[in-house]
Amino acid sequence: MRDRIEDLTAAFTRLPGIGPRQAKRFVYHLLSVPPSDRARLADLILNIGADIRQCRMCMRFAPSDSDGLCNYCADVSRDDGLLMLVEKDQDLLAVERAGTYRGRYFVLGGVLTLSGKGAIRERDLIRVVEARSTEGLREIVLALSATSEGEHTADRIREVLQPLRGSLLLSELGRGLSTGAELEYADSTTLSAALQNRKET
Amino acid sequence: MRDRIEDLTAAFTRLPGIGPRQAKRFVYHLLSVPPSDRARLADLILNIGADIRQCRMCMRFAPSDSDGLCNYCADVSRDDGLLMLVEKDQDLLAVERAGTYRGRYFVLGGVLTLSGKGAIRERDLIRVVEARSTEGLREIVLALSATSEGEHTADRIREVLQPLRGSLLLSELGRGLSTGAELEYADSTTLSAALQNRKET
Amino acid sequence: MRDRIEDLTAAFTRLPGIGPRQAKRFVYHLLSVPPSDRARLADLILNIGADIRQCRMCMRFAPSDSDGLCNYCADVSRDDGLLMLVEKDQDLLAVERAGTYRGRYFVLGGVLTLSGKGAIRERDLIRVVEARSTEGLREIVLALSATSEGEHTADRIREVLQPLRGSLLLSELGRGLSTGAELEYADSTTLSAALQNRKET
Amino acid sequence: MRDRIEDLTAAFTRLPGIGPRQAKRFVYHLLSVPPSDRARLADLILNIGADIRQCRMCMRFAPSDSDGLCNYCADVSRDDGLLMLVEKDQDLLAVERAGTYRGRYFVLGGVLTLSGKGAIRERDLIRVVEARSTEGLREIVLALSATSEGEHTADRIREVLQPLRGSLLLSELGRGLSTGAELEYADSTTLSAALQNRKET
Repeated sequence: MRDRIEDLTAAFTRLPGIGPRQAKRFVYHLLSVPPSDRARLADLILNIGADIRQCRMCMRFAPSDSDGLCNYCADVSRDDGLLMLVEKDQDLLAVERAGTYRGRYFVLGGVLTLSGKGAIRERDLIRVVEARSTEGLREIVLALSATSEGEHTADRIREVLQPLRGSLLLSELGRGLSTGAELEYADSTTLSAALQNRKET
Repeated sequence: MRDRIEDLTAAFTRLPGIGPRQAKRFVYHLLSVPPSDRARLADLILNIGADIRQCRMCMRFAPSDSDGLCNYCADVSRDDGLLMLVEKDQDLLAVERAGTYRGRYFVLGGVLTLSGKGAIRERDLIRVVEARSTEGLREIVLALSATSEGEHTADRIREVLQPLRGSLLLSELGRGLSTGAELEYADSTTLSAALQNRKET
Repeated sequence: MRDRIEDLTAAFTRLPGIGPRQAKRFVYHLLSVPPSDRARLADLILNIGADIRQCRMCMRFAPSDSDGLCNYCADVSRDDGLLMLVEKDQDLLAVERAGTYRGRYFVLGGVLTLSGKGAIRERDLIRVVEARSTEGLREIVLALSATSEGEHTADRIREVLQPLRGSLLLSELGRGLSTGAELEYADSTTLSAALQNRKET
Repeated sequence: MRDRIEDLTAAFTRLPGIGPRQAKRFVYHLLSVPPSDRARLADLILNIGADIRQCRMCMRFAPSDSDGLCNYCADVSRDDGLLMLVEKDQDLLAVERAGTYRGRYFVLGGVLTLSGKGAIRERDLIRVVEARSTEGLREIVLALSATSEGEHTADRIREVLQPLRGSLLLSELGRGLSTGAELEYADSTTLSAALQNRKET
């Protein structure tokens, strides 16, 4: 008989950031809870895909309407002139929490690493930019992390979008002091941007 | 409609050591894999309890035979004279990996904290010690972590076992230098034990 | 006889960030080097103040000219219209490394904490702002860390400078994504500023 | 003119564990204290070697008597039958803090790394063991860290001492659970030793 403890441990190690030791801790935790709790978790996992689909415009995972659109893409009050490109669903949620962006989104689904790994949804990106260009799109905001992978991905996106640009404005998030940043440890790029973006107070 | 992403995120935060951010990362990971992968994980979770039961003697979670015993408790070649008490299943597995212990086990199922929290399987402990006492038990090894919680739990176990002790030997794991320990940072208890337990070389 | 090892250990623990254990390591290191190395370190410490003085305008510690000015304050090619306020000498050096600021500096000598601790050179600040106001000062840049202490200190500086402001512009470093910042973990203030400060690319 | 701030920063980076950033912080700290504080630190560094010498028997740095012996080597009440070998002065002090060892010491002055680096005082070790062998030495305790470097150094010491062993006992500190060690994370060597060194309780 196969050892089901080992099987479930192995399955948990496929979750992002989970090693064998923590995976085993999950298993023993689940063994110690009532069967109804396990049944509920299993049910949630089994059915997470039922009403959660990828929105056909922003490609994020969310409940979608009969037209295949998530709430942000279906919201007619949002600005069709702005399209923000983010790496992943969680980044989009962080921007929404900030509460100051009212345009549209597109989730790239990954970043490109310097070593040539990673993938982004290039064909969907082209399709969506072409579609939105006919609906008043004015500016594409590259909202990538301020990391070498983010910069590498931005370079690729500029290449991909080059044929479609026309009069589209392409912009990048501004650099400066992140909350918590200390001057002494800030690098020159950050400090120069912070100086350039200084605000009257 | 309740948000199933939030529901599954909340369920994942009940796993040990998982906060809301990592829980959400699990959810988006699961949304991005084929439905068959989700179905398999759900199935493993649902059925982990099917053939994994608590052994009626050592109380660990493991496949058990028709008599309700795990492989270690059913193994007639192991020494009935020794009973090792450990906090949790993973500790038992660590001792087995070391490969030098050939006695029996009992899993306490927790530790007692200084602030009065935590619980151990006291009634099962008494039942098992009484049962094993009639089968040649000579020594109970308290194999608890070298932490204040471990010491606190050991104190309670000594109290619980006092009426049953008779001629039973009660022992504790030896203290000394753990692999990786540096003399400069070792505390006095560790150094004194390491000196007392010194070995000819 | 006093124990000189203990005396020197205690003296080293007064250095910022040094605990007793590392202080003792310094002592044994110094005992193990040639006496000439110790003599040289002692000489450097004894004489660090000889030609290093606080510049009478920016208050930083640096070699100063016969007029009591450091090289940045004595440099006639720098812009008298800009005065940047920084917490400490190392922050000034970080801004210089960035290489894009060509105005004047003032080192506050500390920050004010929320618990009412800390001190800044208020009287020197007033004296310097008054002096520089007669020499074409247009803008004061508050270049404090993006921390609660930095904000608290900025609030106090605004109070102190209020009577002197006249037509002076008071500005703060721009917020945005610091190098290395990831969108998923960025707070709303940082993201909103990064969005507002976005740049064509 | 050479920059004395840079010179002192460079001198501080020679202290163990100090990088350029912290070294500079030391310099600015010293610039901000009264000159008398700098003079006192310089004096302590200059004169640390004055009455602190290496004991001619244990080789540790300590105040020594007219015979060139530190207090532990001069103490006639300590047991000449035991000689403990430690890596460095701080290790000896840790053992003394534990308060249970009453024999003699020898400080090796380093460890040997697997990559062939490091050095120990082999000639002094041979001299001291020969001298102490005529004064009742019975046992040499290798008190090295439970690291691969410690084991590598112990191997070399066994080689060096082989010709001198005669009836001398060579021992090593005992392994087991260090204070704070948790069973789940303990390796097999530690657990096996902890089991073997278990104590009645």
